[in-house]
Amino acid sequence: MAEEQQTKAEAKPEAEEKKKLTIVVFAGELDKALAAFMIAATAASMGIAVTMFFTFWGLNIIKKNDSKVKNKGFMRKMFGWLNKGGSKRLKLSKFNMMGMGTGMIKKMMRGMKLPSLEDLMTMSHQMGVKMHACSTTCGLMGLAEGDFIDEVEPEIVGAAFFLGEAVESKSTLFIS
Amino acid sequence: MAEEQQTKAEAKPEAEEKKKLTIVVFAGELDKALAAFMIAATAASMGIAVTMFFTFWGLNIIKKNDSKVKNKGFMRKMFGWLNKGGSKRLKLSKFNMMGMGTGMIKKMMRGMKLPSLEDLMTMSHQMGVKMHACSTTCGLMGLAEGDFIDEVEPEIVGAAFFLGEAVESKSTLFIS
Amino acid sequence: MAEEQQTKAEAKPEAEEKKKLTIVVFAGELDKALAAFMIAATAASMGIAVTMFFTFWGLNIIKKNDSKVKNKGFMRKMFGWLNKGGSKRLKLSKFNMMGMGTGMIKKMMRGMKLPSLEDLMTMSHQMGVKMHACSTTCGLMGLAEGDFIDEVEPEIVGAAFFLGEAVESKSTLFIS
Repeated sequence: MAEEQQTKAEAKPEAEEKKKLTIVVFAGELDKALAAFMIAATAASMGIAVTMFFTFWGLNIIKKNDSKVKNKGFMRKMFGWLNKGGSKRLKLSKFNMMGMGTGMIKKMMRGMKLPSLEDLMTMSHQMGVKMHACSTTCGLMGLAEGDFIDEVEPEIVGAAFFLGEAVESKSTLFIS
Repeated sequence: MAEEQQTKAEAKPEAEEKKKLTIVVFAGELDKALAAFMIAATAASMGIAVTMFFTFWGLNIIKKNDSKVKNKGFMRKMFGWLNKGGSKRLKLSKFNMMGMGTGMIKKMMRGMKLPSLEDLMTMSHQMGVKMHACSTTCGLMGLAEGDFIDEVEPEIVGAAFFLGEAVESKSTLFIS
Repeated sequence: MAEEQQTKAEAKPEAEEKKKLTIVVFAGELDKALAAFMIAATAASMGIAVTMFFTFWGLNIIKKNDSKVKNKGFMRKMFGWLNKGGSKRLKLSKFNMMGMGTGMIKKMMRGMKLPSLEDLMTMSHQMGVKMHACSTTCGLMGLAEGDFIDEVEPEIVGAAFFLGEAVESKSTLFIS
């Protein structure tokens, strides 16, 4: 009996702790973005609280598709032009083949009635997935809150915020 | 008082929880596959229960080396041909140099009597490492259970299965 | 006394556990090294105990910049020449553009008074971040303790060591 009680008590923190997942999205490729949001949306549908933290190339996923980031300085202008971003501009990390492979995958996904990246992002948002942009890399790339899609309402936060979430999470994935 | 006791009891399950490791293998390169299976085999030898979840390019690692996946449709046929897979066809993520770098690493590993990827996979399997293929990406790439090596006996499972494992694991690694 | 006992019982797994972060650094690119050390330095400043485990291409980050690794055998010599490493030789994983992109990012970071990778490494070391090199990949690449920077004092350890840390950590990140 005493043992049984102990077992019950033990179980408790587990259940609550299980409820949190943190995902750092460092990569900005279509396949990795799909993996990140498939996991996020599935986790949210299971009642897990999901926090996503976008940094470096991952910021491209949550940039507005029609954004016109106005960068100051030649280098940042050039870099911003090369690194335009927006979910519709993402490419596969393999077999992009000048966009042909990427287009092929998107067509295959449509053919199978799989949700697109944009659908997964909307679903994740609707199910309460929280998305944040990394302040340091935003600063480096000259990005401000207005450059990110309204739909996901990202807040720009620092690494300390992400770490605060990570230490409270059951799992932290780093998608690079 | 009662609450306090409970708190003490709560602390316990941690120790047991330590016994589980989940690895998502998203990448399909030789070096990353080696890292994944070195960790899996070592963890298993330490008594840690390991679950591996292969998705996207990671599916290539567990494909049969002599597989002839019969894909329907031109796009999937072409994609399947480009993305053939099988542990023996994997390349280094860096310095592949048309296969020369990859061959060099394999030769160096043999020279040092290090286990090959295939050895590590067999060892992992024998020590009870569980390997699963992601249902969504299997569907996308037109893969079924028969396309994967018998030795590892993967079961095709969804993201919810992986998340169920992840929330019970002490650590979850995402190898991309 | 009573308080002390309680603290011991409760705190042990939970509170202390929260304080630990393990980072596997598999990648050897500048952007990924920056991410790894920004996280490590921030975590350390928050009182989290950080253990970094460098493997495969990640070893390049902690190699001496002026190292002259003397490799035996033609293959290893050639490989060592291609894979020279040292924090100052790291390139961006994207937009390296023969070094132009990498130089641009470094210049932008200086312009914003952001710490360089070397600064972050020194800071991390000073705040007690522990750095270790993976014995298997050191062996494969013909690297010994003397090949790594003194500042970080890495010890060469096996995968079992890393897993021992990982199962005691609140989060484990795999940066690939």
